[in-house]
Amino acid sequence: MLKIKTTNSLVTPLLTDKYQLTMAYAYWKSEKQNQDAVFDLFFRKNPFKGEFTVFGGLDEVIKFLHNFKFQQDDIDYLKTTMPNCEQGFFDYLLSLDVSKVKLFAIDHGTICFPKIPLVRVQGPLAVVQLLETPLLNLINYPSLMATNAARFKLASGPKVTLLEFGCRRAQGPDGAISASKYSFVGGFDATSHVEAGKLFGIPIQGTHAHSFVSSYMDFSDIKNPTLKDSKGEKEVNFVEFTLEARKETGYLNTNDSELAAFIGYALSFPDGFLALVDTYDTLLSGVPNFLTVAYSLHKLGYKSVGIRLDSGDLAELSKQSRKINDINEPAIHKLNANNHEINVFGIGTHLVTCQAQPALGCVFKLVEIDGVPRIKLSNELIKITIPGKKEAYRLFGKDNQPLLDVLVKTDSEQIPKVGERFLCRDPAIESKRMVVTPSKVVPLHSCYWDGKQVKDVPSLAETRKFVLQQLENINPVHLDLLKPKQYPVTLSDELYHFLHDLWLKEQPPIELK
Amino acid sequence: MLKIKTTNSLVTPLLTDKYQLTMAYAYWKSEKQNQDAVFDLFFRKNPFKGEFTVFGGLDEVIKFLHNFKFQQDDIDYLKTTMPNCEQGFFDYLLSLDVSKVKLFAIDHGTICFPKIPLVRVQGPLAVVQLLETPLLNLINYPSLMATNAARFKLASGPKVTLLEFGCRRAQGPDGAISASKYSFVGGFDATSHVEAGKLFGIPIQGTHAHSFVSSYMDFSDIKNPTLKDSKGEKEVNFVEFTLEARKETGYLNTNDSELAAFIGYALSFPDGFLALVDTYDTLLSGVPNFLTVAYSLHKLGYKSVGIRLDSGDLAELSKQSRKINDINEPAIHKLNANNHEINVFGIGTHLVTCQAQPALGCVFKLVEIDGVPRIKLSNELIKITIPGKKEAYRLFGKDNQPLLDVLVKTDSEQIPKVGERFLCRDPAIESKRMVVTPSKVVPLHSCYWDGKQVKDVPSLAETRKFVLQQLENINPVHLDLLKPKQYPVTLSDELYHFLHDLWLKEQPPIELK
Repeated sequence: MLKIKTTNSLVTPLLTDKYQLTMAYAYWKSEKQNQDAVFDLFFRKNPFKGEFTVFGGLDEVIKFLHNFKFQQDDIDYLKTTMPNCEQGFFDYLLSLDVSKVKLFAIDHGTICFPKIPLVRVQGPLAVVQLLETPLLNLINYPSLMATNAARFKLASGPKVTLLEFGCRRAQGPDGAISASKYSFVGGFDATSHVEAGKLFGIPIQGTHAHSFVSSYMDFSDIKNPTLKDSKGEKEVNFVEFTLEARKETGYLNTNDSELAAFIGYALSFPDGFLALVDTYDTLLSGVPNFLTVAYSLHKLGYKSVGIRLDSGDLAELSKQSRKINDINEPAIHKLNANNHEINVFGIGTHLVTCQAQPALGCVFKLVEIDGVPRIKLSNELIKITIPGKKEAYRLFGKDNQPLLDVLVKTDSEQIPKVGERFLCRDPAIESKRMVVTPSKVVPLHSCYWDGKQVKDVPSLAETRKFVLQQLENINPVHLDLLKPKQYPVTLSDELYHFLHDLWLKEQPPIELK
Repeated sequence: MLKIKTTNSLVTPLLTDKYQLTMAYAYWKSEKQNQDAVFDLFFRKNPFKGEFTVFGGLDEVIKFLHNFKFQQDDIDYLKTTMPNCEQGFFDYLLSLDVSKVKLFAIDHGTICFPKIPLVRVQGPLAVVQLLETPLLNLINYPSLMATNAARFKLASGPKVTLLEFGCRRAQGPDGAISASKYSFVGGFDATSHVEAGKLFGIPIQGTHAHSFVSSYMDFSDIKNPTLKDSKGEKEVNFVEFTLEARKETGYLNTNDSELAAFIGYALSFPDGFLALVDTYDTLLSGVPNFLTVAYSLHKLGYKSVGIRLDSGDLAELSKQSRKINDINEPAIHKLNANNHEINVFGIGTHLVTCQAQPALGCVFKLVEIDGVPRIKLSNELIKITIPGKKEAYRLFGKDNQPLLDVLVKTDSEQIPKVGERFLCRDPAIESKRMVVTPSKVVPLHSCYWDGKQVKDVPSLAETRKFVLQQLENINPVHLDLLKPKQYPVTLSDELYHFLHDLWLKEQPPIELK
């Protein structure tokens, strides 16, 4: 069984809203706590005005189930906040575990769509009720983050390297961990966040900041100027060597303290030299100083990586920086072979805070109790829940692309099969029906927990690979970032009637008097 | 010394960006690691298009300093990611602590303004550099959150109770903890989040959810219908009692399963009954059922709190709900004395994600090294840092309201004094000068850490009280939510010249050839 690493010690049963506990008490008082309940966790609308979502957070959900247990000090605290509740209830809470809980989920990293349950939980009513808030917390942001990352990936194309730099702007330490983790799942290549690298094996990257550059005052700041060439044969005083190279590049009127900082950094990391060029003046000092040091390293057999721009008009500055690079001096010419293009994006705030839409609206709804289907009605049609236990299938067309998802009643005989025509219905619009003869049928849900963990959650790297594969395979019209086409989520004919019959039953016609 | 509770085990020195470590290595290689460095942590712009910010996160910063220590397994991991670095560097990292670090800060909960350092850190260059990312992480979101909460408080007025309900939409478990904690600091009254209540003593509140209502099928679901009256004298079958009361209220055609759920909840919490009324139909079922149960409880001497609306047009529904309530039947009339107005707001997503602006842009800039002032230039005037060590003073007018903040060089003799005229200058606009004769002068910074903690951070409740006091005392023009007036942040004449001289020195005039 795969070991899932803990991210957080705070994931206790108290990671919850108080109303889960007041409800649990009312269930217990009514002796309803052990009724067999089924809840669906799903969302109603894709984020970022898009038409897809990447499912994230299943790893932490399973980890949470492993750790679900009230401790004595939790109970002691709860007693102070629910002073009129009976002692028997607190004894009951202390005894709770998830040994009677079943959790079905779609696979981690699945590209998913509204209404399809991401997770279905079955078990004693009060216990499953207590799982609501933690499950939503552990799935909402990770799914939002993975989706946001996947959208950056789609926007930047396969050749660009994407780095997540959001640690300082995330919601606390664990917000930052989640951001790094699920942006990797969604397709990012690396993070700047060291703890995330240590915990999850995500590649980490980083160079230097403005403060590094401004901490150097002149060349005397460099106490150990010796550098060997890349073959380890020749040894030079790299400060003197670079000042000689500077005469060749001709960039003599740049900021000396910045050049000293670049030399200091190059001495520590001669391979893959990368400089932040906008501390003083990007075009008059930063880029020329970079080129001088890069040329100097080049003469010693080291390859440089490029420049980093943090501020200003990035598009314009990058164009101008390339122009300097294009100056056809012999020294610079050699560098061009190294292909100095801006080919890495480091994204911070907008990525981790999901600025365009900072929350995904997953909900957790009761769909069945003691075998009886339940429905939450609403005047807003989009908010009606689909009652009862359901399975989801993804049906593929001839080109092996997903055509649609269909929800089917659990244990129904009406399930889609390869090569057979299957009627799929829009949940709300009676006339909207599609007949599909699938070339492949993939059941989306499987059981991950049945009293104990019964299926592994793949590693983050595997999950990331799965996401990228799906992004390649889903019809691009659904992934379009600006004008996406809705992916069909449908019901079997049987489920359609089941839903509509129950809906009518619960909303009796208006009686005319 | 006040004990500060841990929120999170992840707050280790690895809560950082990799470039802090690559820089630390380059400092170490250049033997610059022990240079005496001074960094300012500040923001350049208030969030939410407002003109004030509430400083949050100092408690966690101090906690972080207490725990700052690289562990052997951190080092083992770092070696794998920086394979070409010398062993001596890793030995150095392992030996690091913050015993030579001084941290000055404005008090926790201070209403603060751009450019004024929230925190000033002084110590060995490499150590202070390593504090950058954690300090930003621990201050950015808490300050943003506290500010957002204070804005909700200003918007809703002093009479309304504000509840934070955002646990399920926050950035992971710790994002949720931070959201609860700093929304309390910013003026919220309670949270739904149980763990935050347990950790920090924040009041917690909660009732029930839609799933609770839909889990009841009929009155037979209630196994223990006995309820004593509020004096403990009379005992009734509360199901039968309520069905009798229902005849008096006349609300006979409501949803029975919903009424059963309300009865079930009232049996558990007869005092302070509060019902979620929009599971089936707010006006035709939810509100009438609430009134029936509330009336029934009223007859037994219990007071009810009110209804909760979760969906739909809240303004319209609340008006309509009051109308029902106003129906002048004798039974309902008695209830009116209990003042059924919507007087509590529970706010979730928009609060915790800070939807209007999901990140505060605090930065951490080197301002002095080995006693030499440093400056980060920029083509954007707003991005220039103010060099050197500085103190901030808040100057008050005759009515005891703050007039402006002024930054002064540390150890300067030019400091503002009560009753004496003091010249304050706009940092950028030469002609913009103000002369103030303060009735009170409050130094904003004090030392919290000098190798060890030297000043307590007040409790959250005290900090919250301090925030609310300031919101009362600051000129409302600066707190206006829509069209606020900028609060002046100024420099002493001496600091103004110091900044401008250094700026000109670092940007030599263009040489005409």
